[in-house]
Amino acid sequence: MHIHIGLLGCGTVGAGVIELVQKRADKIADLTGRHPQITKVLVRNPLKERSVKFMGEQLTTDPSAILNDPSIRVVIETIGGIEPARSMILQALRASKHVITANKDLIALHGAEILEAAEQAHVDVFYEAAVGGAIPLIRPLKESLTANEITDLMGIINGTTNFILSKMTATGADFDAVLQEAQQLGYAESDPSSDIDGLDAARKLTILASIAFHAKVSLEEVDTYGIRNLTAADVAYAQELGAVIKLLATGADRQGDLTLQVRPTLVPKTHPLAHVSDAYNALYVRGDASGDLMFFGRGAGSLPTASAIVGDVIEVMRNLSMDTSLRVKQICLPHKMVKRGQGVPARYYLRLEANDEPGVFAEIASIFGRAEISMETVLQKRVRGQIAEIVIITHEIDSEKLTRALDELALQPHLQAIHSVMPVLGGVE
Amino acid sequence: MHIHIGLLGCGTVGAGVIELVQKRADKIADLTGRHPQITKVLVRNPLKERSVKFMGEQLTTDPSAILNDPSIRVVIETIGGIEPARSMILQALRASKHVITANKDLIALHGAEILEAAEQAHVDVFYEAAVGGAIPLIRPLKESLTANEITDLMGIINGTTNFILSKMTATGADFDAVLQEAQQLGYAESDPSSDIDGLDAARKLTILASIAFHAKVSLEEVDTYGIRNLTAADVAYAQELGAVIKLLATGADRQGDLTLQVRPTLVPKTHPLAHVSDAYNALYVRGDASGDLMFFGRGAGSLPTASAIVGDVIEVMRNLSMDTSLRVKQICLPHKMVKRGQGVPARYYLRLEANDEPGVFAEIASIFGRAEISMETVLQKRVRGQIAEIVIITHEIDSEKLTRALDELALQPHLQAIHSVMPVLGGVE
Repeated sequence: MHIHIGLLGCGTVGAGVIELVQKRADKIADLTGRHPQITKVLVRNPLKERSVKFMGEQLTTDPSAILNDPSIRVVIETIGGIEPARSMILQALRASKHVITANKDLIALHGAEILEAAEQAHVDVFYEAAVGGAIPLIRPLKESLTANEITDLMGIINGTTNFILSKMTATGADFDAVLQEAQQLGYAESDPSSDIDGLDAARKLTILASIAFHAKVSLEEVDTYGIRNLTAADVAYAQELGAVIKLLATGADRQGDLTLQVRPTLVPKTHPLAHVSDAYNALYVRGDASGDLMFFGRGAGSLPTASAIVGDVIEVMRNLSMDTSLRVKQICLPHKMVKRGQGVPARYYLRLEANDEPGVFAEIASIFGRAEISMETVLQKRVRGQIAEIVIITHEIDSEKLTRALDELALQPHLQAIHSVMPVLGGVE
Repeated sequence: MHIHIGLLGCGTVGAGVIELVQKRADKIADLTGRHPQITKVLVRNPLKERSVKFMGEQLTTDPSAILNDPSIRVVIETIGGIEPARSMILQALRASKHVITANKDLIALHGAEILEAAEQAHVDVFYEAAVGGAIPLIRPLKESLTANEITDLMGIINGTTNFILSKMTATGADFDAVLQEAQQLGYAESDPSSDIDGLDAARKLTILASIAFHAKVSLEEVDTYGIRNLTAADVAYAQELGAVIKLLATGADRQGDLTLQVRPTLVPKTHPLAHVSDAYNALYVRGDASGDLMFFGRGAGSLPTASAIVGDVIEVMRNLSMDTSLRVKQICLPHKMVKRGQGVPARYYLRLEANDEPGVFAEIASIFGRAEISMETVLQKRVRGQIAEIVIITHEIDSEKLTRALDELALQPHLQAIHSVMPVLGGVE
């Protein structure tokens, strides 16, 4: 029995989906008893030359040719962005079509609305490809690991920033130079702000946290810092301290109090996340029964993303052949609350600049002492003239203590600048 | 609605399952609409003191009290070994009970029989905990990644050997000393042969390969080498060459020709598998669409194993509430054939001992030249008297070429010994 599929969009990801469905249609039929067939593809320009070879897929510029076609049971959305993707998906759901999407922006911002529409229509919405490309993340969190209370998520879930940070670490170059190179190679967009300011990672964290913590989480609840102000000096100090800097998206659940952050973090080289380089992604998960887990792989690209989308197609085929939609419920526990502006207790890396005079370091140390912050490592180097750079790694502290110390430090006349404040990731458990 | 569960065995894993089901019963009911309740537990000695607190679970020494109880819909087996576990599981299946097991030995040897019995009774058998403890492996391979042709599996799937190898690397100690320490710490059994000779890893590889490659794979088809003869010298040379030695279980599918191996392998430190230390497990997967993926986590232990088992319990609850058993088919493609005694092309590490005389190295080099093997790295050190140790890393070659060269080397009068031959893992793709 053939299942007709409509594909919205035929860019890099859409073309990968067509190629993979063509290649695997017979295998999918063997596995599920249903033969997937992409019958219509929504494109902007049907005359454009494309690398993908069409085998019966019909091109159309009219969304309603897909959304109003009762023979189409499944719609795959690869357009991206909020509109018109949102309206099309809602229309498809209302027409009782199952929907598969890789659209992280849409799910992060309008996930609740879309899931509700799917439930009302008694069809499924799957979005494994929205986070972590080819890496199975959403299904393991929703199914395999549900016997756990997930307490921590730590993810490298933005390829652009990870490429930039890996290059900065490997070459010692400064941020601006590496960003330019990444733009030339196509790893960063001409307006890179969504990536480098951490917004893309924050959107993906919103999706993961809502599933892992069974909570309503909105994008504004993520404390988001990017890598724009990161310097070669910080990268070099991190290496001297046995660590690398990664843009980590972290979520923590402490008895229902959630904290969500995207921020540059020192990751000790003994931690598996330190070795996730270039455009690779990884999600580190801590469950109360499972202990620590990590999922690693390609976070983007035509076929890796198609791998996740067609995995979802297979799930839909199974549900169609068994007549079991809405099989996996997502529960939302009302007592879970996001606390903004505070992370879980952590060690912190600080880079300060101060006058290189007798007694200055003692003053700084006494400020830390009054804030009950003890230091694990201190490096001091004269950088120029009478100015010294001081790098401190604290023992594990509450972020409020740190804020108090930083406020007092800012009043210190001998302190020239507080250049960087970054958390340091803890060990494997 | 309550679902009654019978538990066979109440050792470390069984106790973890009881604890986790008690803790998560309400959450599971929220997720699936079915409330799991372990009603009976098969034990050898009901009077034994146990750390787990029973809350209504009834102890019994009589298997038929569980297997013949029609109110019990699900049986969890944590006894281990072949018999009586096999007979009990078959009896449970024939009585139309769903079965969940962590029994890798049983699934590796009698998986086909058990899956067939389940299909006939129209019930499910799940065994996520059989490989990789808490790490979701089997479900991602069976579901999320099925849009791929999986071409390669590379796993660190035996905790005991990984603990020993990590210790040897960290301390420079010899195998025997570290094995003793592992035995004292409880990481290795008093008869450690199943672990250190690679048999346990081979069993797990059999399970993973049959799923990933859609093939009938038997334990005897795995070329299995252990770590018993590994020396501190090899560990030190590996480090000098920027690698660590891991016991890798590898499976490769080249157009239907399968090769399955368990053998000590040099893993370059740039590879994510190099950083999987101590008792952690990891599976590295290469799919034709997904690219490279890795799954990392705790391979054993009471609660990590229970995490996987109770994950399977939740899957059974879902299937019961939706009335859909045998949802995920496992297909077996008849053209897939295991080729014994040959790996995929690889670089190789060799450690030889030869007379330290002029011309000897040239003779060795010319043997390699005749076998069309070119060398990537050569280290030569005088070890004692007139004896030199030669360490070679070849470029990528077929294993037949290597065999030919080794045969000819063995006839070389100046060659004293061929100490070690190990493959070197390739890079991330």
